Amino acid sequence: MYIGVDYYPEQWPKTRWAEDVRLMKELGINVVRIAEFGWQLMEPEEGVYDFSLYDEAIELLTSNGIKVVLGTPTATPPAWMIHSYPEILPVDENGVTISFGARRHYTVNSGKYHQFTKKIVTKMAEKYGQHPDIIGWQVDNEYGHEKSDRSYGALDRAAFQCWLKEKYQTLDELNQQWGTVFWSQTYTDWSQIPTPRKVYQEHNPSLLLDFDRFCADAYTAYNKLQVDILRSIVRKDQFITHNFVFTDQAINQWDMSKDLDFVSFDNYPVWGGLAEPIKPAAIAQQHDLCRSAKGGKNFWVMEELSGAQGWSRIGYLPRPGHIKLWTYQAISRGAEAIVYFRWRAAQFGTEEFCHGILDHDGLPKRKYEEVKEVIQELKTFGDEWINASYEAEVAAYYDIENAWAWGIQPQSDAFAYKQEFLRFYRPVHSANVLTDLVTAADDLARYKAVIVPIYFLTNSEFTEKLKQFVSNGGTAILSYRAGVKEENNFVTGQTLPGALSEFTGIQIHEYESLQTSQQNMVVGIKGTIKGQESTATIWCDLIEPTTAEVLAEYKGCFYEGTAAITKNSFGKGTVYYIGTALEDAMLDGLYDDILAEAQVDTFKTNGEVEVVKRGQFYSFLNHSTTETTPVKLPDGTWKTAATNELVKGELMLKPLQAVVLINE
Amino acid sequence: MYIGVDYYPEQWPKTRWAEDVRLMKELGINVVRIAEFGWQLMEPEEGVYDFSLYDEAIELLTSNGIKVVLGTPTATPPAWMIHSYPEILPVDENGVTISFGARRHYTVNSGKYHQFTKKIVTKMAEKYGQHPDIIGWQVDNEYGHEKSDRSYGALDRAAFQCWLKEKYQTLDELNQQWGTVFWSQTYTDWSQIPTPRKVYQEHNPSLLLDFDRFCADAYTAYNKLQVDILRSIVRKDQFITHNFVFTDQAINQWDMSKDLDFVSFDNYPVWGGLAEPIKPAAIAQQHDLCRSAKGGKNFWVMEELSGAQGWSRIGYLPRPGHIKLWTYQAISRGAEAIVYFRWRAAQFGTEEFCHGILDHDGLPKRKYEEVKEVIQELKTFGDEWINASYEAEVAAYYDIENAWAWGIQPQSDAFAYKQEFLRFYRPVHSANVLTDLVTAADDLARYKAVIVPIYFLTNSEFTEKLKQFVSNGGTAILSYRAGVKEENNFVTGQTLPGALSEFTGIQIHEYESLQTSQQNMVVGIKGTIKGQESTATIWCDLIEPTTAEVLAEYKGCFYEGTAAITKNSFGKGTVYYIGTALEDAMLDGLYDDILAEAQVDTFKTNGEVEVVKRGQFYSFLNHSTTETTPVKLPDGTWKTAATNELVKGELMLKPLQAVVLINE
Amino acid sequence: MYIGVDYYPEQWPKTRWAEDVRLMKELGINVVRIAEFGWQLMEPEEGVYDFSLYDEAIELLTSNGIKVVLGTPTATPPAWMIHSYPEILPVDENGVTISFGARRHYTVNSGKYHQFTKKIVTKMAEKYGQHPDIIGWQVDNEYGHEKSDRSYGALDRAAFQCWLKEKYQTLDELNQQWGTVFWSQTYTDWSQIPTPRKVYQEHNPSLLLDFDRFCADAYTAYNKLQVDILRSIVRKDQFITHNFVFTDQAINQWDMSKDLDFVSFDNYPVWGGLAEPIKPAAIAQQHDLCRSAKGGKNFWVMEELSGAQGWSRIGYLPRPGHIKLWTYQAISRGAEAIVYFRWRAAQFGTEEFCHGILDHDGLPKRKYEEVKEVIQELKTFGDEWINASYEAEVAAYYDIENAWAWGIQPQSDAFAYKQEFLRFYRPVHSANVLTDLVTAADDLARYKAVIVPIYFLTNSEFTEKLKQFVSNGGTAILSYRAGVKEENNFVTGQTLPGALSEFTGIQIHEYESLQTSQQNMVVGIKGTIKGQESTATIWCDLIEPTTAEVLAEYKGCFYEGTAAITKNSFGKGTVYYIGTALEDAMLDGLYDDILAEAQVDTFKTNGEVEVVKRGQFYSFLNHSTTETTPVKLPDGTWKTAATNELVKGELMLKPLQAVVLINE
Repeated sequence: MYIGVDYYPEQWPKTRWAEDVRLMKELGINVVRIAEFGWQLMEPEEGVYDFSLYDEAIELLTSNGIKVVLGTPTATPPAWMIHSYPEILPVDENGVTISFGARRHYTVNSGKYHQFTKKIVTKMAEKYGQHPDIIGWQVDNEYGHEKSDRSYGALDRAAFQCWLKEKYQTLDELNQQWGTVFWSQTYTDWSQIPTPRKVYQEHNPSLLLDFDRFCADAYTAYNKLQVDILRSIVRKDQFITHNFVFTDQAINQWDMSKDLDFVSFDNYPVWGGLAEPIKPAAIAQQHDLCRSAKGGKNFWVMEELSGAQGWSRIGYLPRPGHIKLWTYQAISRGAEAIVYFRWRAAQFGTEEFCHGILDHDGLPKRKYEEVKEVIQELKTFGDEWINASYEAEVAAYYDIENAWAWGIQPQSDAFAYKQEFLRFYRPVHSANVLTDLVTAADDLARYKAVIVPIYFLTNSEFTEKLKQFVSNGGTAILSYRAGVKEENNFVTGQTLPGALSEFTGIQIHEYESLQTSQQNMVVGIKGTIKGQESTATIWCDLIEPTTAEVLAEYKGCFYEGTAAITKNSFGKGTVYYIGTALEDAMLDGLYDDILAEAQVDTFKTNGEVEVVKRGQFYSFLNHSTTETTPVKLPDGTWKTAATNELVKGELMLKPLQAVVLINE
Repeated sequence: MYIGVDYYPEQWPKTRWAEDVRLMKELGINVVRIAEFGWQLMEPEEGVYDFSLYDEAIELLTSNGIKVVLGTPTATPPAWMIHSYPEILPVDENGVTISFGARRHYTVNSGKYHQFTKKIVTKMAEKYGQHPDIIGWQVDNEYGHEKSDRSYGALDRAAFQCWLKEKYQTLDELNQQWGTVFWSQTYTDWSQIPTPRKVYQEHNPSLLLDFDRFCADAYTAYNKLQVDILRSIVRKDQFITHNFVFTDQAINQWDMSKDLDFVSFDNYPVWGGLAEPIKPAAIAQQHDLCRSAKGGKNFWVMEELSGAQGWSRIGYLPRPGHIKLWTYQAISRGAEAIVYFRWRAAQFGTEEFCHGILDHDGLPKRKYEEVKEVIQELKTFGDEWINASYEAEVAAYYDIENAWAWGIQPQSDAFAYKQEFLRFYRPVHSANVLTDLVTAADDLARYKAVIVPIYFLTNSEFTEKLKQFVSNGGTAILSYRAGVKEENNFVTGQTLPGALSEFTGIQIHEYESLQTSQQNMVVGIKGTIKGQESTATIWCDLIEPTTAEVLAEYKGCFYEGTAAITKNSFGKGTVYYIGTALEDAMLDGLYDDILAEAQVDTFKTNGEVEVVKRGQFYSFLNHSTTETTPVKLPDGTWKTAATNELVKGELMLKPLQAVVLINE
Repeated sequence: MYIGVDYYPEQWPKTRWAEDVRLMKELGINVVRIAEFGWQLMEPEEGVYDFSLYDEAIELLTSNGIKVVLGTPTATPPAWMIHSYPEILPVDENGVTISFGARRHYTVNSGKYHQFTKKIVTKMAEKYGQHPDIIGWQVDNEYGHEKSDRSYGALDRAAFQCWLKEKYQTLDELNQQWGTVFWSQTYTDWSQIPTPRKVYQEHNPSLLLDFDRFCADAYTAYNKLQVDILRSIVRKDQFITHNFVFTDQAINQWDMSKDLDFVSFDNYPVWGGLAEPIKPAAIAQQHDLCRSAKGGKNFWVMEELSGAQGWSRIGYLPRPGHIKLWTYQAISRGAEAIVYFRWRAAQFGTEEFCHGILDHDGLPKRKYEEVKEVIQELKTFGDEWINASYEAEVAAYYDIENAWAWGIQPQSDAFAYKQEFLRFYRPVHSANVLTDLVTAADDLARYKAVIVPIYFLTNSEFTEKLKQFVSNGGTAILSYRAGVKEENNFVTGQTLPGALSEFTGIQIHEYESLQTSQQNMVVGIKGTIKGQESTATIWCDLIEPTTAEVLAEYKGCFYEGTAAITKNSFGKGTVYYIGTALEDAMLDGLYDDILAEAQVDTFKTNGEVEVVKRGQFYSFLNHSTTETTPVKLPDGTWKTAATNELVKGELMLKPLQAVVLINE
């Protein structure tokens, strides 16, 4: 398997290069990613190309047995370009032009920028497309990151209008689909349509959702522009990928992935300003996204954190053990290659405090030794591991457009899309059940249960698939605010949960948005959660069962006694509806019953231990920084993947320990 | 009486209209407001008019016995207009042009916009001005809402300069009145004068106050422009009104009301993001404003909340009972018509989550039944009730310019104008004493007591009236920061409370602004509050009595023992001065004594019960959502207004119960 | 000595002037500062000059024995100028042009503004440069205050590019020194270089630091432009100064001071919005800055607070006694003249709520009497006092460029430069040890100990001096993050603390940035702090001693037992390194040992009593507003400076009492 580093030879004197490569070899890596911010070096002035620095670096690396992934440098248009063609710069929602001086300072809607992109990508492809030790390409870098997903300038406006024309064909149709009759917004000429610049109140939610779709499509098209050039020139076995970041930005990773050979991902469980890592379930969910965005195909972690990170503010210091733990978590969940960010901390530039395997002094120390240990261990079983298949009995519906719709209308001050998605995903993670993230395009038949968290913006194709799935015996878990919106971001005219009413066996005639300071109570009345209480926050659907049975009800509010959680039979299957944001403890109890009934294999652990099965390989990952936790091994023969030692009965996991066992 | 709904026929398919009207009739309403956002429909392109949709809707409604109020659509200039004349768009204090895409996107200082306004209003007046079932007009919608009160662009600047020229005639006078000698701001040409765009520090407070006056005048003139056209064309018995929102925005509702037949008001005790309704006293005060802004004339609630509200964030869900409670509160305090917002929640547009009597599914449910009950009850006594007179023995001085002056210089971080106004108004509300809100133009002679909260920006006419009023035997209650500012927003050169020093019998040589984290103590030394303690927050005047007696003094600060509350005899009357922001409990005790001495009729209740007398009608309104509270009825015969049942002794009010009794 | 007031005759009717001067004489002042905002009066239109108002005021003042300091009025360019030459206005980081309407609305990089400046300063100098009673000049007013230090417009950009050309000569050198190879930022033409306008992420830290240097240099040059004109025209004995405010703004007070005869300072221990005064140590440190910025020369307090202050928000009310206390604190620490701000509170303009010796009513009251008492007392010994020398045995390194570098990269959310500087300065202040603030230009030989707080941006000249100083027997105290940055804002490539590693006898291979919510513990293992515990916040250096001994170590984190505080012998001296932000109590214990070992004279006091020795004069300043605190006097004869009364044994200091004793 490939294990490597992100390396910036241009940032160090050539006199240091040999020492870097010596240390890399000693560390055991076999790949580096380079060049993704090197446009100025490659095209020092318009139309003049010079690849000598990278030639030299590639020669040194590859002659030492290290393969190379090349990044196209389009995240960093050079100063000369911006100076000559300032229209390339993006514009924010107040009309402020983003300045040169950092990165991602281009609007993806600039034709001029497309021209420059074509030229540099073509040149790079011609130059390196046949190189035997260049194994692949990363296109651009972290599309849309740091608010670069949305630009609101004149070029963007014109492109948005074109996109709308393409989508709706006629203004009548657009006016209909957006409900522009509201507030006299009907457009009588395409050129009247604005980008969502600053208004006194809020823009039309249908316009806003289409603007997000437009932004995402523009990036997908821009990515394809590069991919198409590369594919037409480079060796067939050079792969093409892009390193995603998964935020709620207006980028559609699923669409974009279709044009890539596989997905890459930048894995930063901590970042500047964070006092602790994001939760293990949150990291896991991102890996699941990577794996699922390309139909279950292995992905690369193109940037795997190896030290404390941040720009002007430095975040939580990863503890000894975190590198291995997070590396193993990634591979367990579908990564086939790990590229650590970054080889050595930079002495200059915005990312001075992005610490690497080496710190500023360039000496191999704790982190170097930790990575070395990981690599040595992986040499013994990594190749086998990444070829092992994963099986997910559970899927969770994740539609980026739903995330955008929530971003446009969070409805409660306490609502955050990621947090709520995680609320309903975490219990499965906690039960150590591998979960695929699916969209309307995916086949559900292979799963036993499908979770559909906060299914606000519905997708009629998915709704049909889900009904079919349950009809055939599957189990579905839905949450509050399901079925609210049609695809054009209209509110359904049907009684809630709209098209899911018969399916869930309920009707919702009233609901309550709770602000951060408000909460109700829910009490379980059936199953494991019987008698258990939980706060109900963010949102309360007042459920009226039609055919469903009630599993829990509200308490201590004017709708005390009203159903809060229900269970319905639909065809051969079962549909759960959770009408409010519950605490983890009640969700765990509820999911226990659901998963058991759906005959999903779970693996119960204590503390913060995550277990992931990939083929015969079981990763045991203790995310606690302080607690040693025992894990009871199921029957069967267990041996350590790295050393083939037999393990029996109970596995003791020290804080942050990560162990891979083989079960035979 | 009129009870109706705000209806948007244009937002629903015509096939639904008949069902809507059927449900409206069943509900019992007799009026709808329509068309206030329908410009695009009425003028689909410049100079082309088409009233067919509204013709049809009006025909359907009126043929079913429902009267119509028509809104002029000027809150929503259409896309074609903005595209052709972008100079209509307003500009914020940073120079950012507000975009098309929501509403109120016009600067009231655009001559071009005046032209368009004249044309559409003329056309509407000509079209509908003689219609027998169109009973009146609402001009525009919620002037100034959502920061649309102030615009800072080139057109606004020119208009501001004109307004100043008109006001001051000479630059010498302006320079004098603004104190421009400070910081070399003297203007030598009218064109040098800026709107208050972004500066490093803060603008001249006299300029800022004049800018607010200018903005308010511009809106008053703009309103008059529409009113004048309507009056010149429509039937005499079609009324003309505007639906105010009462915030501290730069709109002068008193001035504007002069041009209206009566005041209308949009009553939203909760809005998006609010976790609970605003306090009953705060709602009551807004009704008092409505009643008082037009000299005690009945007003309309043109939008009365009927469900949870909000744009992208939804606020507190009104409980069962709230609709009736708030309806009755409004009528008790001067409303003669109630128009519920809105008939049905929209499926599209910014206001998707403004819930109505019907929700998105269009089915009559709890809220529909609640409104129906209200209407049925009101049918029995509503007409009599709205014709009953109200008598206020107490007045509170409320000058919007004073609110602006406080907005410009709040002086303490803890200060908020509305909160402090309410601090001194609430105790009278709590004693169930109806209070008029008066300005310098009003006659005080009819009152027994006048409250003058935080009388910072003085008005010499009012000061004289107040002195006369007390001189003749009246009672005045003043608070901290009285008498500070002259009308040009200069600080008085007299010892505080300036022109009120002899009147109050005190001098203030020192004072202290307290920040949120700071507080002092006050202890009562006379009357009911003797020995009672209260925190003193926000501001402390260190009072030196000249002729006044001391009712309370400070404690636990370097001015311990200094007077905090005083009482002075002036002529035949009495003047109280409250030098700090006290807690409610001490204010209640203090007001008890004051009201008793002034022989004001009070009606003591427990819990959150509000009692309002309007003629013989007494409303008993329990604002508590949880507590049942008894009210002891005074002697006399009491019967329910709706059913003529006798009630004796004690009235038990359930949570949120609203009962109207007749006392004979 | 000079004691005076800031007076604005232009803000009052001439009929009031005589009364003002009478009250001033009665008060005992002998100097006023005038005219610093009077440009419009002096140049009412372009090229037309009129000094008649100031002529008259100066005549009245000086004929009454009051000397005059004249301010040049360049903080307030008049309306006519801005209207004719709007390019003078500064521009913020979003491209928003700052409006006329307050003050400091000029970019220091405007050539047009330089021309206007030259003309008005020349005219003033010619007019008043020989006046016998005009004793000196204040140039402009509070450079850089209220964010006026940085402007980002087209003129600024061009000037920045020129400055860079001057500094780096070649683009190659600039690209090298900024590390522009990072993110393809290499510049191929000077005109490509931006000012740091809004970007999606963060600008290059080397560009940012140079931009701050450029802004500071531009102001230094602008100041010199005025100084040079004045010097070339005015009498030799008219001094030239400027009134600094010490914030982290991009102004280099040290550089600028070289061109001034002495430093002035505006002393506002409280300001609008502050609920309490800044700490005595924080005020003291600002005085030390003043004294030290001009090599120990006496300074003027050109604005000494005399009442509550604020623009639209008023801060903490100075208590009776504060005026005297803060006046004496200033003189104790190097002030030779006190000018109170302001004579009387203005009735108009932005500063209406900047209260003065007189309030708006112009009557002499408490504050007037308090100032009078101070002046009377100072008449008896002030002249002697301000001529007494001060001796500092301790110095603290304070480099404004270091402050800028921290502003650019605070690294922890909890970090604030001033707070951290004070953390390591306060213990010396608490031990009543006078501390000079030194830069690389200063001689260290005269000190026994040098504190070098958060020495992030190193200065090689200072590093060498410090080593030499310790080598010769001195004591140095360094803190966390020492030695990190090179002068171009690159991170050192050496193991931390970089060039200070051998010096401190330690290496730092790991560190942890702590966010506000995080903390570790430190426990002392040697000396006074043995067994003492303290929280460790903001930052933790994990120290590996090479030659140093360990004084304290971490506890309760993964690096428990690692050194947190060390002590190293270097040459004949000693170097302490404090690797984290400790609580005051532990720092006090630690400093006790250090100062004792370094044989620094301390003067222990209880409560909030500050003692400052200046020659034979000892100020005893009780900063507590509530506690009476005894001070044990050392042996020797003690008498009061004002009255020559003997004082023995113990001095009882009432709250806020300030007493000056002479020790013989």
